[in-house]
Amino acid sequence: SLARRCHHRSTAMLDVPFLPFCAFLGALGLLCVAMVGTWCQHWRGGFSLDGSSRTFNWHPVLMVTGLVVLYGAAALVYRIPNTWSGPKLPWKVLHGSLALGAFVLTVLGLAAVFCFHNSQGTPNMYSLHSWMGLGTVLLFSCQWAAGFGAFLLPWAPAWLRALYKPIHVFFGSTILMLSVASCVSGINEKLFFSLKNGTMEYKLLPAEAVFANTLGLLILIFGVLVVAALARPSWKRPDSDSPDSRQVRDALGG
Amino acid sequence: SLARRCHHRSTAMLDVPFLPFCAFLGALGLLCVAMVGTWCQHWRGGFSLDGSSRTFNWHPVLMVTGLVVLYGAAALVYRIPNTWSGPKLPWKVLHGSLALGAFVLTVLGLAAVFCFHNSQGTPNMYSLHSWMGLGTVLLFSCQWAAGFGAFLLPWAPAWLRALYKPIHVFFGSTILMLSVASCVSGINEKLFFSLKNGTMEYKLLPAEAVFANTLGLLILIFGVLVVAALARPSWKRPDSDSPDSRQVRDALGG
Repeated sequence: SLARRCHHRSTAMLDVPFLPFCAFLGALGLLCVAMVGTWCQHWRGGFSLDGSSRTFNWHPVLMVTGLVVLYGAAALVYRIPNTWSGPKLPWKVLHGSLALGAFVLTVLGLAAVFCFHNSQGTPNMYSLHSWMGLGTVLLFSCQWAAGFGAFLLPWAPAWLRALYKPIHVFFGSTILMLSVASCVSGINEKLFFSLKNGTMEYKLLPAEAVFANTLGLLILIFGVLVVAALARPSWKRPDSDSPDSRQVRDALGG
Repeated sequence: SLARRCHHRSTAMLDVPFLPFCAFLGALGLLCVAMVGTWCQHWRGGFSLDGSSRTFNWHPVLMVTGLVVLYGAAALVYRIPNTWSGPKLPWKVLHGSLALGAFVLTVLGLAAVFCFHNSQGTPNMYSLHSWMGLGTVLLFSCQWAAGFGAFLLPWAPAWLRALYKPIHVFFGSTILMLSVASCVSGINEKLFFSLKNGTMEYKLLPAEAVFANTLGLLILIFGVLVVAALARPSWKRPDSDSPDSRQVRDALGG
């Protein structure tokens, strides 16, 4: 009984409400988007569609905005307590639409770097960053298509939905971890490419390097917090793992 | 009832037993260690303690071995079903010792890169890789010290153990994700440094680049699988979240 009271009190102390946490995550995500935009605008020459390094600059902005921040927002939809009751279809459409938006930005982000490489005669797909990044985008495309087919189209049987759901949830967090690791290796790589002239070398840690390193750390923190929020048991839909839960009834009901 | 049977059947289909999965993870971890050793031995000139790039070569080997593979082994100790009953102290000592071994290798890995930089006159701690990596090691040192103080020393009260345990578990997975992201950005960076002479440029994707990129992907897969294994509900100690669980009784009992 003492142990029980201790345990209750201590877990209550750790209990953060979801919505304020979510507002903090939203602010952190917007800060990451603003910082990657500032980096490219202020230090890397801004944006254009002419195939120069100003075309490349769309790549980090679109990837951080799409594959990290908007993706994170899509992943967290089912943690909003309002989604736990009432009709589920509108929330499914919201989740799928945010993920589709993230995917479109991601594909445009890929197009930016391929266009830049091709117009400069640089080979594509040689670095570990590119392998990991393209692998992440391919996983994301499978995830979106399979989620759409299983959960939004009406024909999928309940057993298929119940079988696929934990797989979809697992890859949801995994793809975010991979995209954060891709961003970090990409920022690191870009700084080595860009900062190599005399007084502006990366190793002398000019202001741009401090700014972009900080951006990388903030992206990491954003990713870790989203994955932690997804994993937190008390923020999941109640009883979502028990066999007689709403989840299966919803799956049967469509 | 149909839904319940569907759900049971589908979750049973996804149920992998822990120990075979663990054996697979062990083989994958050993493969990563063998590959990072082969990379440094075969392509990067081998190992020495003379402050040259052969001293640097200890850095990737020690980091992959300590901060990824041995760390992963330490993290998984409490998922072995044998640890769920009987006296807990021997398992605590095993968990703490594996983590201490991982930490010692990690510190030696840091010493290798600082020694190399200092003897070459290269600044330390400027790249995003170094910031993230050192942050990861600092988190790991806090994690070890706090875990030792709270769970192995006898004086910690039950409420403190119950309060700290979910924090320790959360940072356990987080530190592994950060160390995997550090490894990937480090391999990417090292390949840009090393492969820049004419026919051996990274962008021409020589055999070394394919080998080390593959190593990076295998480290990523290892990290994702360990984090997934830690998160899997059916592999956790039964009832570890309920207030009247063994966990709290153990915490009270010492």
